[in-house]
Amino acid sequence: MSPFTGSVQPTEEWRHLRLSVDDGVATVTLARPQRLNALTFGAYADLRDLLAQLTRERSVRALVIGGEGRGFCSGGDVDEIIGATLALDTAELLDFNRMTGATVRAIRECPFPVIAAVHGVAAGAGAVLALAADFRIADPTARFSFLFTRVGLSGGDMGAAYLLPRTVGLGHATRLLMLGEPVTAAEAERIGLISELVPEGTAGERAAALAARLATGPALAQAQTKALLTAELDMPLAASVELDAATQALLMTGADYAEFHAAFTAKRPPQWHGR
Amino acid sequence: MSPFTGSVQPTEEWRHLRLSVDDGVATVTLARPQRLNALTFGAYADLRDLLAQLTRERSVRALVIGGEGRGFCSGGDVDEIIGATLALDTAELLDFNRMTGATVRAIRECPFPVIAAVHGVAAGAGAVLALAADFRIADPTARFSFLFTRVGLSGGDMGAAYLLPRTVGLGHATRLLMLGEPVTAAEAERIGLISELVPEGTAGERAAALAARLATGPALAQAQTKALLTAELDMPLAASVELDAATQALLMTGADYAEFHAAFTAKRPPQWHGR
Amino acid sequence: MSPFTGSVQPTEEWRHLRLSVDDGVATVTLARPQRLNALTFGAYADLRDLLAQLTRERSVRALVIGGEGRGFCSGGDVDEIIGATLALDTAELLDFNRMTGATVRAIRECPFPVIAAVHGVAAGAGAVLALAADFRIADPTARFSFLFTRVGLSGGDMGAAYLLPRTVGLGHATRLLMLGEPVTAAEAERIGLISELVPEGTAGERAAALAARLATGPALAQAQTKALLTAELDMPLAASVELDAATQALLMTGADYAEFHAAFTAKRPPQWHGR
Repeated sequence: MSPFTGSVQPTEEWRHLRLSVDDGVATVTLARPQRLNALTFGAYADLRDLLAQLTRERSVRALVIGGEGRGFCSGGDVDEIIGATLALDTAELLDFNRMTGATVRAIRECPFPVIAAVHGVAAGAGAVLALAADFRIADPTARFSFLFTRVGLSGGDMGAAYLLPRTVGLGHATRLLMLGEPVTAAEAERIGLISELVPEGTAGERAAALAARLATGPALAQAQTKALLTAELDMPLAASVELDAATQALLMTGADYAEFHAAFTAKRPPQWHGR
Repeated sequence: MSPFTGSVQPTEEWRHLRLSVDDGVATVTLARPQRLNALTFGAYADLRDLLAQLTRERSVRALVIGGEGRGFCSGGDVDEIIGATLALDTAELLDFNRMTGATVRAIRECPFPVIAAVHGVAAGAGAVLALAADFRIADPTARFSFLFTRVGLSGGDMGAAYLLPRTVGLGHATRLLMLGEPVTAAEAERIGLISELVPEGTAGERAAALAARLATGPALAQAQTKALLTAELDMPLAASVELDAATQALLMTGADYAEFHAAFTAKRPPQWHGR
Repeated sequence: MSPFTGSVQPTEEWRHLRLSVDDGVATVTLARPQRLNALTFGAYADLRDLLAQLTRERSVRALVIGGEGRGFCSGGDVDEIIGATLALDTAELLDFNRMTGATVRAIRECPFPVIAAVHGVAAGAGAVLALAADFRIADPTARFSFLFTRVGLSGGDMGAAYLLPRTVGLGHATRLLMLGEPVTAAEAERIGLISELVPEGTAGERAAALAARLATGPALAQAQTKALLTAELDMPLAASVELDAATQALLMTGADYAEFHAAFTAKRPPQWHGR
């Protein structure tokens, strides 16, 4: 447990998603297959709070998000979210939309890599959750749809108008967010929306294999790589170079850098400590 | 008419370009085919002022820009712009270049989507006008040339050094702006410079069809999608997520979001109000 | 010589790299082929100082960086850098990492285009030096590896976490920096990491030909194109448009813009002055 633990008790049971943790890999499964894993208020809240808990506990080194059944996630539930939000007042509407955005920030800002294992539908908020992940492992059945305009909302939802142009360029991002049409796995690969296209039915196992590799890797170096990628999207060149220099100087005092050199010299594989 | 109309009179006749408006779609045609639609001082000024007028009037929901004859636009006229600017003094040179930049800002900042229908030459300022649009529908004859260095000027013209790296990445943008070589339609598609490659001779009709679809769509949601894409290129992640939340909360009080839910529940297509 | 020359004496002999200058083209060759051109403290320092000197002298209009022997550059030397830094104290570690970052800033901020001619291995700092260049001419043997995590360090090294997402998008950049796996020339071309893929063994000559073309081109226009691409990555749209306007107004008072018009009118090729 981290020495920086306060009074907050860990949540033992997550009612709105399924969680397993093994050997430093957390696996979150969206598990309402009868609704194509449509999100509810509770699912968003659990994602936000689970990421905060895992960040506090520091025992997890990689996280996989996947969906049970025929697809990844069909986005906000038509009744339990769209219908329900029609009855909310102004302050509640803002609270709801800040919560959904908070899940994206939590994915971008947690210290471990997040891998989305995508098959079938990844629509609306489901597409943005995948977009916010560090890796998107998709199989040929994957369909990404940023369909917000199709329900009368802005394509800029949960940071999508920030993240998508920085991932696939402004032209593709405009087309995808403005029209809300589905992106096939092949197009997603062509425009840089996915990290890897894998054979049908293997997205989950390939994501698990990548997570296992990352969990046994140099976790602090990986965490800083993620933190710097996230931070430097918002920083100018000179400040980014300075941040890199300070970060690298810090990591050069760490155990894993010394371990690499010792292992290389001894012609053996490094045993990463993650610190 | 918008209630936010003041004393400014609408311009009835645009002398330096051709305009038609039908069913919420404005179509601007660059119509100097004998000069490959080379731009003049007047054409820039009209583009700038027309976009301001259409933004004030709020009756237009999509705009198409195309060129008459053999190409889209060959850029600034060699005599009427390059020759003429050689006789301008310092303050006039700055005024001229601010005017050209103002057309790009107007395209990026107007509340309706702008679609460039590109065939044949899109060179210099013509390439940047297309780049500033939200969609570029191009046919196989399209050739984009950011040829500013070839006339002794900076490739950063009218925001090109801002927009192009954010559209095709820094590597391609450097090559295109530094060397000024033509980009074929096939390369433009490969690097993300165009939204859609369509059969020869159909760019205009395909752009018109997309404009018609957008004009009958959820116009406020589309306008906010465009506004957020434009704004969030210049914003950090946390602020972008907050802007998305406030925008979405606002749109959730709008007519189109309720209409989507009503239509979905009644199993009928939504009738968008655009508000 | 520039009138803005002070007391600093030019360095006549660069001990840690090979330099030749011909007709305005500087060629830097990393020349420790027995170590795959692994970088040393001295090589970084010489790169930083050489770029400062060439910037002061204003006689060079293009620079090519290549590697002698089997590859471009294998990155920091395992003994002379990784081993040596393990013995440095905190202040020295920061100095070292600031120096490596300074070479990247010098490449991005010098007024002439920099062309990396890449064959074989471009690993670690070698990959970042190539990434910082304006052009990457690569042959099919090229392999780019941002392998920092594999030695226990952050993938954000020397500005890589800033430059790579802006070149290939956030998704590819995350994968490349987090995992450190080699990118083949074919993938590098597909994702926009290289400017041009050329036949095996010709990267050096093709880079030299491009440098020669740039050196006889409109050098001031090219320098401003580079400066604006670099600056506008860190600027908002409106300010970028203003910077473009001021720059273009300035260049319209320059010799090369007048020369273009005179040459065009006389139907002869322009003779660029570079000012």
